[in-house]
Amino acid sequence: MQQSTHPSQSLSVPAATDSAAHLSALQQTYTAIPRTRPTTPILDAIDAPSDLKSLPTKQLITLVDELRLFLLYSAGQSGGHFGANLGVVELTVALHYLLDTPHDQIVWDVGHQAYAHKVLTGRRDKLSSIRAKDGLTAFPERVESVYDTFGVGHSSTAISAGLGMSLALRYQGREQTVAAVIGDGAMTGGMAFEAMNDAVQQDANLLVILNDNDMSISCSIGGFSRHLAMLWESGYQVDITTDGTPVLRQRPIMQAFNRRKRQRDVPQLEDNLFKAIGFTYFGPFDGHNIPELLRVLSLAKQVHGPVLVHIYTIKGKGFGPAELDPVGYHAISKLPTDDNEATTKQLVNSKVKAAPKLKFSQVFGQFLCDKAATDDKLLAITPAMEEGSGMIEFARQFPERFFDVAIAEQHAVTLAAGMATQGVKPVVAIYSTFLQRGYDQLIHDVALQNLDVMFAIDRAGLVGEDGATHAGVFDFAFLRCIPNMLIAAPKDENECYQLLNTCYEYKGSTAVRYPRGTGIGATIEQPAQNYQIGQAVVESVLGSDDAPIKLALLAFGTMVATAQQAAEALITDDSAKTDCQVQVVNMRWVKPLDTNLIENLLTQGVTHIATLEEHMIMGGAGSAVNEYLLNESPGFKHSRPVICNIGIADRFVAHGSQAEQLADCGLDVAGVLDQLQRLLS
Amino acid sequence: MQQSTHPSQSLSVPAATDSAAHLSALQQTYTAIPRTRPTTPILDAIDAPSDLKSLPTKQLITLVDELRLFLLYSAGQSGGHFGANLGVVELTVALHYLLDTPHDQIVWDVGHQAYAHKVLTGRRDKLSSIRAKDGLTAFPERVESVYDTFGVGHSSTAISAGLGMSLALRYQGREQTVAAVIGDGAMTGGMAFEAMNDAVQQDANLLVILNDNDMSISCSIGGFSRHLAMLWESGYQVDITTDGTPVLRQRPIMQAFNRRKRQRDVPQLEDNLFKAIGFTYFGPFDGHNIPELLRVLSLAKQVHGPVLVHIYTIKGKGFGPAELDPVGYHAISKLPTDDNEATTKQLVNSKVKAAPKLKFSQVFGQFLCDKAATDDKLLAITPAMEEGSGMIEFARQFPERFFDVAIAEQHAVTLAAGMATQGVKPVVAIYSTFLQRGYDQLIHDVALQNLDVMFAIDRAGLVGEDGATHAGVFDFAFLRCIPNMLIAAPKDENECYQLLNTCYEYKGSTAVRYPRGTGIGATIEQPAQNYQIGQAVVESVLGSDDAPIKLALLAFGTMVATAQQAAEALITDDSAKTDCQVQVVNMRWVKPLDTNLIENLLTQGVTHIATLEEHMIMGGAGSAVNEYLLNESPGFKHSRPVICNIGIADRFVAHGSQAEQLADCGLDVAGVLDQLQRLLS
Repeated sequence: MQQSTHPSQSLSVPAATDSAAHLSALQQTYTAIPRTRPTTPILDAIDAPSDLKSLPTKQLITLVDELRLFLLYSAGQSGGHFGANLGVVELTVALHYLLDTPHDQIVWDVGHQAYAHKVLTGRRDKLSSIRAKDGLTAFPERVESVYDTFGVGHSSTAISAGLGMSLALRYQGREQTVAAVIGDGAMTGGMAFEAMNDAVQQDANLLVILNDNDMSISCSIGGFSRHLAMLWESGYQVDITTDGTPVLRQRPIMQAFNRRKRQRDVPQLEDNLFKAIGFTYFGPFDGHNIPELLRVLSLAKQVHGPVLVHIYTIKGKGFGPAELDPVGYHAISKLPTDDNEATTKQLVNSKVKAAPKLKFSQVFGQFLCDKAATDDKLLAITPAMEEGSGMIEFARQFPERFFDVAIAEQHAVTLAAGMATQGVKPVVAIYSTFLQRGYDQLIHDVALQNLDVMFAIDRAGLVGEDGATHAGVFDFAFLRCIPNMLIAAPKDENECYQLLNTCYEYKGSTAVRYPRGTGIGATIEQPAQNYQIGQAVVESVLGSDDAPIKLALLAFGTMVATAQQAAEALITDDSAKTDCQVQVVNMRWVKPLDTNLIENLLTQGVTHIATLEEHMIMGGAGSAVNEYLLNESPGFKHSRPVICNIGIADRFVAHGSQAEQLADCGLDVAGVLDQLQRLLS
Repeated sequence: MQQSTHPSQSLSVPAATDSAAHLSALQQTYTAIPRTRPTTPILDAIDAPSDLKSLPTKQLITLVDELRLFLLYSAGQSGGHFGANLGVVELTVALHYLLDTPHDQIVWDVGHQAYAHKVLTGRRDKLSSIRAKDGLTAFPERVESVYDTFGVGHSSTAISAGLGMSLALRYQGREQTVAAVIGDGAMTGGMAFEAMNDAVQQDANLLVILNDNDMSISCSIGGFSRHLAMLWESGYQVDITTDGTPVLRQRPIMQAFNRRKRQRDVPQLEDNLFKAIGFTYFGPFDGHNIPELLRVLSLAKQVHGPVLVHIYTIKGKGFGPAELDPVGYHAISKLPTDDNEATTKQLVNSKVKAAPKLKFSQVFGQFLCDKAATDDKLLAITPAMEEGSGMIEFARQFPERFFDVAIAEQHAVTLAAGMATQGVKPVVAIYSTFLQRGYDQLIHDVALQNLDVMFAIDRAGLVGEDGATHAGVFDFAFLRCIPNMLIAAPKDENECYQLLNTCYEYKGSTAVRYPRGTGIGATIEQPAQNYQIGQAVVESVLGSDDAPIKLALLAFGTMVATAQQAAEALITDDSAKTDCQVQVVNMRWVKPLDTNLIENLLTQGVTHIATLEEHMIMGGAGSAVNEYLLNESPGFKHSRPVICNIGIADRFVAHGSQAEQLADCGLDVAGVLDQLQRLLS
């Protein structure tokens, strides 16, 4: 097939016609996820974006259908992100058709919408491996493909990264187009605004495509989202002329988009935020209309300076059930192989099926509801993770006490600090990996003032298929150096509930840190307890009291169960053959540490101590134990036990199931047993 | 004096008149900083904001003059932030006159402009102690005064905090006004945008006052700043009617404001960003016109929902030299007592006086210029800290390679990551405390991809008068847990230069961490060296080889000099009387650690090891040494030396000089000596 270094110059770009707007209905809508590989002859011939160049526009539309069908099939095989990918099929085809990738560069914000991009860039046959161990990553990743220009996963980075590329290219005199694709949900993240501000300052050539589907994972909210709604409701469109200048006109009819009405009265044309900040703005356009996309993007990429093209898309486009329930179809699980049902909707945070075990996020949700019922000081904040953090029921029961601040972690933390100054008790529900975004605010606005804020840190430790971008393995290190902070790590669901209660009752800055998914299935005890702060618990003592080796396992969080099983194996397993006594300690608190219990162990003549955590070894909870033993412990100076810190070594952990990741890090029972045996040998 | 819980209802508010706009010239302009306490009879009668209420408007104008003169006098006595405070004298008087503080609540963004606020809220006679040990803090602080509703120091937090207050008050049914005052420079920080987005979503009653002086510390930049310029250049004003509705009119003449012209052609009225996001917008108004401020603010605070009042002020207003040079007069040093010159301008980063020692920021600036001259891959980024980071000369010599991205730390880091993907080498110059704002980006966008970015981390360790908000004492902990990161800590100016060079030459993610101010005065050696990565250096061996005690001091960064002096005192000081040998080791690298050198020490029979760092003990560099010794070191298992980690204990350190702070933390020579003696006893 034809290779072209600057394909746009030789492309036939359709002229602007209102009738083009009606082509958006051309693509097919499917109602079932195919269980066998669909026939996709055009798609099968695309091994690289260059193979697209010679296709006539009509075949591109057929390609879109094939690609969408292939994505449906593949999602059924592998599970994974769903709605966002279906929404950008046309955009992905149009961009790779117009641009000369990888010479020209596309940055996908978040990247959960990049499946079609992966398919068109030589990874079609690997797509069913996505998110699985050794398979394709859930997001673009530089080491995976030269077409993945920038690794993503967290929201709102694409304009910054794209601007950096553009400026570096300009500095080097290289004329390559950089396009950043960002969703309306991600635009609320402040760094997107910071980047727009700078792009204008730099007068950089940067093509930003705002993929507006009126959604993040949930519905988009806030002033920005209302602004986009206003641009819709105004009935106007800033079209692009053939010389690249903007022209205002009545918006062509776009019946497909059933957007939420949010403006009571809309003036004929309101202020435009993108123009205000200094971008050249075009839009809104129909993002499912291939000829229209080709026309607009081919012209917009020639415009000097920062340009934003605003397109509407439908999350879940082309799959009927997902269009109707975009929140439920944000991601899906793979189809069960023994199920005859052709379309099985499996919500990520399903409440439909009663799971045998509660997820930790559900435990948190239950705590919130229970506590709010008896304490009217409780307010809860989430940065756009109502479903993921288990807050749907709370939001339903206590709407006036539920604050979804959109994707805005920095703001979420300081908002809580502000609330706490007025005598209420805010709870910030946040994933460990996203708390990294609010780190300065946690130090400067919460802990420094010792404000009465509780952080409920979800998805801590290894998180499985989302991979290294989403791992919550730095929080002990970045939190425990901060004065005033209390840090609790529950071993199971019940303890999670009780520690949430304990930290909630404490007046000051606290964090309870719990993992993704389910635990061991512990029943939550009522009434809620108020644990002693900083008090650890000896879970079990195994082996003989007169054994020559006395081992203490100081386990944090969910490693308590692993430590228990490893201890049992050490005592009972014939192959282990270790004549030792093992005490398993549930440390419960990373800060403050239970130093009394540690001294007791030393007094009892413990000869070996191993700390266990699902966290980096460097700076982690074990490191806190080290600091105590070496600096302060009277017992350590006398008994001098051998110490070992078990945790994650100094590397990023690739995706896979949580179990696979734990095994990979030596944090499953076998891995821990192995490390303990080496410690004792 | 009269107490009123809702003073605005009984105030006489001047009617809207164009002539009011001409009152801004009423206030006096001073040309000299008074060296003796000026006579301020009206000000002297104000012990609390309630004392303002009975003053007629004309007396308020006199009060403004007195307050400004008092601030000038006080700044001459104590030094400190200067220009921003002079700019908000009228606003401060107007707010405390109109609002019923502390029932109503004012949040000052950053807070370096809150001196007038401190004077009017019962701290007049303590103002000359500001920034000194045990004196007033540089910023509002909750423990200092009930009028300081929210502790600040870092930029862009006020809208989030104010919104949190407003929402908590609404939830509790409390009708209290919350006003957030934020500068145009701080508005570029993304969290301000996040907060505006949420304020609209919540339809919260929040009065935001945009104090637009066209400056952060330097001139404000970016699309947002141009937007504000456009609002000026349009010649229009959105005025407020007596029923609180907006009305567009020609802007009254405001001759005093000599704003930079930045729009080539200005349409009659452009898009308004604040209205676009959903705020009710009023402005721009003359922020030095007391009657106008009273009129506008008294009406605006009655408007339902989020309101932004945009006022113009002049940084340094009322002091002629500062109006002419607002960057130079951002902050001043105190007047020398033996100097007859009445106005002594002392730049924060003076290049006028040849200092006997180079500041570390100057060393960095020199490195940048030297390296850029020979390596055209070098690009440098600062988030609005051109002066503070020592980059003025670099920006002059290499304007096309200098990127000031405004106050936008998140963006600064990811921008660098994007640049690095295109084969250039970006250097991010950032204060340690502000890197906390870009933490997630450093993990997710730089280190995870192991991109070729160097961080030059300035103001690390204790920073003196700015106090706990600005302390750079968490960076080792939050950085060393991140895979791929190299972390260097130079002991002096020369080593800073060489480590910058070494990390620059390394291909990957690195950080060089150096303190505020000057070092020991080491001469920078040329040509630049490329140190061995992870190699420490034995600085000195003191005492006899056959002493019974062998102590190794593993010192990081500037603690090397302190360790050296403490070691000498330990050997030579009669009162110390310790028969020991001391080796002083300059560790140079926090990551990777020089484990070979540590093993050599153990082989030599070291009996005691102390780590020294200007950083929290928890999770710091000493903790890295602990981890190595306990987990991996073969030598430690045999020789079992006694270990001690010397650093900052688990508390926030109050302001004072750097020397006072170090002494307070036991990190001066006497404090270290004391800790070493306890270790050896």
